[in-house]
Amino acid sequence: MSTDRLAILGGRPEYSEPLHVGQLYAPPWDEFKDQFDGIFRRRYFTNHGPLVSQLEKDLSEFLNCQAICVTNGTLGLMVALKSLGLSGKVIVPSFTFPATVQALYWAGIEPVFCDVDYDTHAISAEHISPLITEEVTGILYVSLWGGLADTTDIERLAENHSLKLLHDACHAFAASYAKRSSAQIGDVSVFSLHATKILNGLEGGIIATSNHEVADQVRTIRNFHSSHTHAAVPLRINAKMSEAQAGMALLSLTRVRKNVENNLLQWQTFYRNLNDIPGIKIYRYDEQCSGNYQYFNFEIDDVRFGLTRDMLLQCLQSEGIAARRYFSPGVHNLSPYDVLFPQYANTLPNTDKLCLRTLQLPIGAMCTIDTADRISRLIRMAHDDAHLVKNQLAEMP
Amino acid sequence: MSTDRLAILGGRPEYSEPLHVGQLYAPPWDEFKDQFDGIFRRRYFTNHGPLVSQLEKDLSEFLNCQAICVTNGTLGLMVALKSLGLSGKVIVPSFTFPATVQALYWAGIEPVFCDVDYDTHAISAEHISPLITEEVTGILYVSLWGGLADTTDIERLAENHSLKLLHDACHAFAASYAKRSSAQIGDVSVFSLHATKILNGLEGGIIATSNHEVADQVRTIRNFHSSHTHAAVPLRINAKMSEAQAGMALLSLTRVRKNVENNLLQWQTFYRNLNDIPGIKIYRYDEQCSGNYQYFNFEIDDVRFGLTRDMLLQCLQSEGIAARRYFSPGVHNLSPYDVLFPQYANTLPNTDKLCLRTLQLPIGAMCTIDTADRISRLIRMAHDDAHLVKNQLAEMP
Repeated sequence: MSTDRLAILGGRPEYSEPLHVGQLYAPPWDEFKDQFDGIFRRRYFTNHGPLVSQLEKDLSEFLNCQAICVTNGTLGLMVALKSLGLSGKVIVPSFTFPATVQALYWAGIEPVFCDVDYDTHAISAEHISPLITEEVTGILYVSLWGGLADTTDIERLAENHSLKLLHDACHAFAASYAKRSSAQIGDVSVFSLHATKILNGLEGGIIATSNHEVADQVRTIRNFHSSHTHAAVPLRINAKMSEAQAGMALLSLTRVRKNVENNLLQWQTFYRNLNDIPGIKIYRYDEQCSGNYQYFNFEIDDVRFGLTRDMLLQCLQSEGIAARRYFSPGVHNLSPYDVLFPQYANTLPNTDKLCLRTLQLPIGAMCTIDTADRISRLIRMAHDDAHLVKNQLAEMP
Repeated sequence: MSTDRLAILGGRPEYSEPLHVGQLYAPPWDEFKDQFDGIFRRRYFTNHGPLVSQLEKDLSEFLNCQAICVTNGTLGLMVALKSLGLSGKVIVPSFTFPATVQALYWAGIEPVFCDVDYDTHAISAEHISPLITEEVTGILYVSLWGGLADTTDIERLAENHSLKLLHDACHAFAASYAKRSSAQIGDVSVFSLHATKILNGLEGGIIATSNHEVADQVRTIRNFHSSHTHAAVPLRINAKMSEAQAGMALLSLTRVRKNVENNLLQWQTFYRNLNDIPGIKIYRYDEQCSGNYQYFNFEIDDVRFGLTRDMLLQCLQSEGIAARRYFSPGVHNLSPYDVLFPQYANTLPNTDKLCLRTLQLPIGAMCTIDTADRISRLIRMAHDDAHLVKNQLAEMP
């Protein structure tokens, strides 16, 4: 039975256990047990074992390109940057998970922070163009919220300027735009298989490319050593995926389509429930995009909604709903980049505004349409009682 | 029943399944099953879960310092280098696994290759001293073969020159010198928990330090993001250990002492059997060292033994014994370092000689005293029939 009073105003919290934005897409115990039984029997734990080989085969088919597995998405980006021979400076959004920029920096590349389009939340050709200089060797494009925007202009721009295009698709597994898969954007796409992603490999990453030379480079770089070859290779690293990761991801892969369908139902429920509330602007996927709907992202206009984004967040947290502010602040305002590159302060207006106003709600494997209905109801109550909530928050220590 | 004729001379191979140098220290299935059952029930797969916390607690006690877990040894070194604020140039042996130098290079640091002492296989104060310049900020000392040499002189040298001392102890878990643990050498020690190491975490690494400030830095750097703090921090990365890795390592940790004892018995068997064969020089641990005896390392003088190291390797491989040449060639002769730093060619005579002459034999969890006896017998046969073997190899394509 749902409460009639917000927890922040003294009601009973809606959830006793916190409901997280990052969901866990776990297989049934029997399948999990059998998979780990097999790993144990084979005593093959890492170093590109049979499950990693199987996963790469299945993913290559699923993504229709060469898929190479690595430890995690961050290492995936680092290896991909080296496989493309990038150096000097690379154009990258600041409105992204910090790992995007960290990967650049570990690879010895200076980020050129680019503002995003206010509607797509992605960098656009219009924002990128003025930033292209002699030192820029590539573009690191980020797809957010499990969707994919139109990248045609950016691909043309990269080609015209002979820039490499690396796609941070960590959010975008199983997404497509105009029937083109997220693995087919640019020279290389990198996916995350973190436990909270639509494809769960505990931790994990995929480097996807249709370029055979780049794929060979990736395979060489991810393994620090091979006794078979001492051929000329770039800097290498240990980015090996273990059999435990691959075993989990294989089980998860069989359920991706079903989980996406389930996410979409929840996403649509949120959309229906929240779309007419004043001051709420829901992030909309392009009509030609088919996403994985792992994130429900919306923006709060505090004047019209009655509360700021952070006030609403406090409301939801007191209900046991672990909503999240992705990304706050933008990476250009995070250490060490704020000190290293102070020139970007106040130059990325869309990024700064989105960082202040957007919020994500729980969606996914451990949620249902009922969850979406209950959370929506609480947000409506927060809007209706905005005045009371504001006063209450003002009195809190 | 053992063969009377070497396989390379037409006999039946000693082993039908290859016997590897890297052994797998696996727990019993029941314990493994219970551990993974627990991970599944908790649905806590990564992001510093309860098993990682438990492992860090147990390791801190075992090592008598602060132990922080990471994805693998390479990332452990990378994070450790950043936590110590190292930059510019760092002195490092070339006689090491390539990952040691790769970690430096990813951290933006130029390696200064240092020759090793011919008996300890480690860099010594004598070799390090002439390499110290204004640009050198630290020493990356590597302990090999599961043992530990006397590091007093190097520690004094580092202190006198205000150099940081980072200890690559990837081979040296559970080793000590004069009762001082391998975790207590220098500012930070890094261990590997690769599946073939004495402590098996599938993949994995430990950063160990007694310095609280450094430990705090390590904890910050290994996790790319924290919603709790935006304090000034250096470059971060995703180096998180998953619960699967920690679960395996916890089971392995309870057996480390027993596995070390078992290794020692095998090591002693090899020593007894091989020590009197002409042209064989066995790597000897210092009297004050207590090692994990994970590697049996010896050197071949081809004139006295009758065969080169590589010829003996071929003999053993044809018997199903996957002996290994660590490290061949030295890192300074590997791509990309040979091209980047050609000045080191032929300047590291001990390294070059060891790279040509040393060989490792299988020792560990899947081996026994009997294995050591059988392998030793084959090596003696190879020496006795050296002339025949040499002729046979000359005729092979």
